[in-house]
Amino acid sequence: MRTHLDCFPCFIRQALEAARMATEDEGYHRKVLSRVLEKLPDISLDLYPPQVGAILHAIVREVADNGDPYHDVKGKYNRIGMELYPQLKKLVVGSEDPLRVAVELAVLGNIIDFGVVNSNFDLEGALGELQNITFAVDDYQQFKTALNDVRTVLYLGDNAGEIVFDRILIEEILTQWDLNMTFVVKQNPIINDATMEDARFVGITDLVRVIPNGAKLPAPATVLDECSDEVNRLFRSSDLIISKGQGNFEVLEEQAGNIFFLLKAKCPVIADYLGVKEGDLLIKSLKKGQEGMVCTG
Amino acid sequence: MRTHLDCFPCFIRQALEAARMATEDEGYHRKVLSRVLEKLPDISLDLYPPQVGAILHAIVREVADNGDPYHDVKGKYNRIGMELYPQLKKLVVGSEDPLRVAVELAVLGNIIDFGVVNSNFDLEGALGELQNITFAVDDYQQFKTALNDVRTVLYLGDNAGEIVFDRILIEEILTQWDLNMTFVVKQNPIINDATMEDARFVGITDLVRVIPNGAKLPAPATVLDECSDEVNRLFRSSDLIISKGQGNFEVLEEQAGNIFFLLKAKCPVIADYLGVKEGDLLIKSLKKGQEGMVCTG
Repeated sequence: MRTHLDCFPCFIRQALEAARMATEDEGYHRKVLSRVLEKLPDISLDLYPPQVGAILHAIVREVADNGDPYHDVKGKYNRIGMELYPQLKKLVVGSEDPLRVAVELAVLGNIIDFGVVNSNFDLEGALGELQNITFAVDDYQQFKTALNDVRTVLYLGDNAGEIVFDRILIEEILTQWDLNMTFVVKQNPIINDATMEDARFVGITDLVRVIPNGAKLPAPATVLDECSDEVNRLFRSSDLIISKGQGNFEVLEEQAGNIFFLLKAKCPVIADYLGVKEGDLLIKSLKKGQEGMVCTG
Repeated sequence: MRTHLDCFPCFIRQALEAARMATEDEGYHRKVLSRVLEKLPDISLDLYPPQVGAILHAIVREVADNGDPYHDVKGKYNRIGMELYPQLKKLVVGSEDPLRVAVELAVLGNIIDFGVVNSNFDLEGALGELQNITFAVDDYQQFKTALNDVRTVLYLGDNAGEIVFDRILIEEILTQWDLNMTFVVKQNPIINDATMEDARFVGITDLVRVIPNGAKLPAPATVLDECSDEVNRLFRSSDLIISKGQGNFEVLEEQAGNIFFLLKAKCPVIADYLGVKEGDLLIKSLKKGQEGMVCTG
């Protein structure tokens, strides 16, 4: 999904939020805002929204001289996630279909995001409602079936904190299937996206191979043109791709591949694009058909 | 209340909404957005938000070559209001305290606003809940008492459609009190704000003297520095001022005067400023004390 004019107010809001995260100096906030406002008229609508985010967050970092404004908050949500981990594991192991619950948790984990409106979230409340959870698009059965036929899986992570939930899904997949998985984190910090440090902290590095995406200009998504040759090779060659979060959907839904998108639709623009309501949760399969992309969701 | 950095995303959103109201040409929408983005870094935070709105909407009008993009929608909501009028009158006349219901309706009418987020509103639903309505600040008793002691009232209108509800409050005040009232509308069209045409359509011109505010640069509020000498004189000399809507509150709450603000707090910035929740309704008295302004709300 390319950038819409409706994304522009949100770009401003995100930049302001990041500026405030980086420093308490209101002069800097104004300076960041002005620089962002000056930059936006030049933005091509052919860019994906996370690419615009990359440009704007680079301005925040430069003006505020803070390379990772979200570092502390990422650590905080990793710790919260790890405290919840035993309870989450029990939910999965004690269920009739452990993979189903693990997938649900992985999508629920996507509510941990500080790059969008209403970043306050009630995780424990959400967990309490796990039994009533519904997905606006639910391609879970296809996902489960697909796992029987694949040998290599590429798992594109999203946010710190959220990756505790990814860990649980990874553990459940590795328990039931013998396959080779690679987990991708961001090369450099961007908003609350998970980096190698986060993957290590929550123990994903002990389960599967974890690689940074190689992108020099950090974007809150897997922008293939910016990623390393290795990530591009794995993206093309893996039998199945698990893509977490809205940003990855935005930049990858036009790509060919056997991709399952696990995400929450966090803004009106993406909800409209997906034909769902804002806030809806999705397990969405996109497969490369012989005549191009076939959306099975 | 002066402009906050948090207002900037909303300025962009409003300009885009107005551009779309003015023309369907997406090239124009982008051009409006770019011009607005270029203008915003120069905006002084000492301006009131409606003054910034005035500057941005002037850009929309200029680029889209449409002096009154909201003309049709204003007519529509005037007509809806007038269709509801008999039912609203019955609610007022049949109640134990008709003034109270008329004031409640006047505040409820303020939910008709296309300049803010979530402009879709459920007016009939809101009317149904009239009996359960609560005000976060409720200076109604002071308002009622004040009317016993005043001879001249200045009523600052807000939006088209909403002024049907103002008409009902005006009628109720004139039924119970013998006083001299002047109703102020905008000189020139801005968003969905009421002009002389709207006051005439809903019949306020038959009840009291209606004057345009005289502002050459139309703002969605009564910016006194821009208004005619007559409006300024009436503002200083009237015994009581009824001020409708958030915009008028933003530009007038620093002014001395016996002012009652009837409004819905429509954004997080104003809600925070007022110490209420977004969406809260208020009947708020602000009086000039001997030692400066005394907020009695």
